Amino acid sequence: MENRAISQAVIKRLPRYMRYLTELRAQGVERISSQELSELMKVTASQIRQDLNLFGGFGQQGYGYNVGNLIREIGIILGLDQSHDIIVIGAGNLGRALAGYANFENRGLFIRALFDIAPEKTVSNVRGLPVYSMDYLPEYLKTNRVDIAVLTIPKTSALSVAQTLYDGGVRGFWNFAHLDLALPDDASVENVHLSDSLMQLTYCLKHK
Amino acid sequence: MENRAISQAVIKRLPRYMRYLTELRAQGVERISSQELSELMKVTASQIRQDLNLFGGFGQQGYGYNVGNLIREIGIILGLDQSHDIIVIGAGNLGRALAGYANFENRGLFIRALFDIAPEKTVSNVRGLPVYSMDYLPEYLKTNRVDIAVLTIPKTSALSVAQTLYDGGVRGFWNFAHLDLALPDDASVENVHLSDSLMQLTYCLKHK
Repeated sequence: MENRAISQAVIKRLPRYMRYLTELRAQGVERISSQELSELMKVTASQIRQDLNLFGGFGQQGYGYNVGNLIREIGIILGLDQSHDIIVIGAGNLGRALAGYANFENRGLFIRALFDIAPEKTVSNVRGLPVYSMDYLPEYLKTNRVDIAVLTIPKTSALSVAQTLYDGGVRGFWNFAHLDLALPDDASVENVHLSDSLMQLTYCLKHK
Repeated sequence: MENRAISQAVIKRLPRYMRYLTELRAQGVERISSQELSELMKVTASQIRQDLNLFGGFGQQGYGYNVGNLIREIGIILGLDQSHDIIVIGAGNLGRALAGYANFENRGLFIRALFDIAPEKTVSNVRGLPVYSMDYLPEYLKTNRVDIAVLTIPKTSALSVAQTLYDGGVRGFWNFAHLDLALPDDASVENVHLSDSLMQLTYCLKHK
């Protein structure tokens, strides 16, 4: 499984499977057919079979898929079998919103601290998390494991802060700053441009 | 141009062209070749030519693309030649973060108000925008044009609130609630699942 090439398109669909399956499990559903999952997720059953077969075909003819197994297997592929330590750079509204997602912890995604340049923001009201001064960041990185840094800062400072994080050993970047962050090849960057999705909406509104 | 079928993949790329071109214009760049744009955006020049030719091939051999023209033409395709009135449902951290994006206004995207169920949140600190009680929403919709509603509320209430908005004439939904919002066909919905992109990052971290 590890060795198979999984296309970007499939990888983008996996978190969506995770969401639906987790919801089903919460409702007490233990197994589901590709047909039922298809109706729920509004994709074709053959697409679902094709996607899930990539991970070793956990479905059984006449039985369907075991929801718990599927969640576990997709979780392993997505790297959620390991825990991740996360810090949030920028304690503004967006940083606080992301730090406040308590259900990340169910996936082993632990937000440990926020950092901000403005001292007035250093009292946290987010789930008791500490908000540290940016000056403390290099020191913090020396003594704490950080797998992922969430960047919710202006693009003018994003690159230099990302460099500080990279130099301190961080290799995962969830970037909300308004630029496509480019870092050395051993770093993983997920750029989120919220306004892009708003423009897709205005496109739909115009052409519908 | 209006009548050509543009694939979803191209539509997803258009806002990215917008970002880079707007940045170039801000730097005083008036024209650019597909080769230069290619290096900047890290996609192939042939991809760029192919994409931009779809809108009528504004590039000229030996001249390249006029940045201002391209911004205008892409803006028209994306529906940004019309202004949009927007309200934000939920005045928590995420709602305030989105309402605070002042540069949406440069694209004709005007956030007019926030709504929240909690009265203690009804004093706004977001760019002077009013925060109204949810009870006032149906009345507000009767007397104000709303093109897009941004949903930053729990999934338990998202569907009924979306129905209220739909009944009040809203047809654009930018949904951050943790569900795939399904509405009648004449509504346009853009579901944003932030945690999906975080899981794509954990995937990359594991498999890099």
